[in-house]
Amino acid sequence: MSPFRSQMDAALAEARAAAARGEVPVGAVIADPQGRIVARAGNRTREFHDPTAHAEILALRAACAAARSERLPGHSLHVTLEPCPMCAAAIGFARIARLYYGAADAKSGGVAHGARIYAHPQCHHAPEVYDGIAATAAEDLMRAFFAAARRPGARGG
Amino acid sequence: MSPFRSQMDAALAEARAAAARGEVPVGAVIADPQGRIVARAGNRTREFHDPTAHAEILALRAACAAARSERLPGHSLHVTLEPCPMCAAAIGFARIARLYYGAADAKSGGVAHGARIYAHPQCHHAPEVYDGIAATAAEDLMRAFFAAARRPGARGG
Repeated sequence: MSPFRSQMDAALAEARAAAARGEVPVGAVIADPQGRIVARAGNRTREFHDPTAHAEILALRAACAAARSERLPGHSLHVTLEPCPMCAAAIGFARIARLYYGAADAKSGGVAHGARIYAHPQCHHAPEVYDGIAATAAEDLMRAFFAAARRPGARGG
Repeated sequence: MSPFRSQMDAALAEARAAAARGEVPVGAVIADPQGRIVARAGNRTREFHDPTAHAEILALRAACAAARSERLPGHSLHVTLEPCPMCAAAIGFARIARLYYGAADAKSGGVAHGARIYAHPQCHHAPEVYDGIAATAAEDLMRAFFAAARRPGARGG
């Protein structure tokens, strides 16, 4: 298995754990320049009552705290869903070198859609972007989660 | 004094406190629908080793934690500088009703510049935006901070 795929598998495990907690199933991991995972997180916006507690933000905060640095040069971030504009901008601030994501998000994404954060001169650092990594698995997780949320008697979103 | 100006004065006080800590001088406060300040914060990215620790994000996290809610309908956010794309998106996620900001930020802003977060259909909620509130005071703070950072022997940025 390629190392990129194994890191995305770890992100998918975080997404599944988020779904089990009733959160939108998105997971992220950060790997250091040697490919070792240094932070992993799933979405916890509901649990934390925190609209910024997306998987990518939690992983960035954990990795930066561990490194005692605002910046993570040479690191890669692997996330199951196209980052939203908030997360895409944070990934740039942290100087992440490579961004790998799974499913495209035409509705809320901010990399290939909408605000296209890395396409403006106001973006001081843009990572290399690789999309579609294990996209089907990530899409299936999202679809199952939202189908369950729509069922009568479900907690809803 | 108008209540909006008094809230911006509180944000300016947070920006001055940030400068005194060696942080880029940006401050933010959040007021509830009655105009009472429920959270206040200054930039702490260096102190926290956290690239997401902008004044707006810290104020949003504090206000949401206090309200035990991801959303702050009817609330206003007052910040000394045009929010970056990360903060502008987070302000939308929190359903902030009104955004008041001071100085424009052509270099890093994401409201009136660059990504223009609220101008895309992928933005599910856009606040009413009021710019230029106490802009001169906010600009003076930024200018003094970066002039000091450039002086020989200064710690730099």
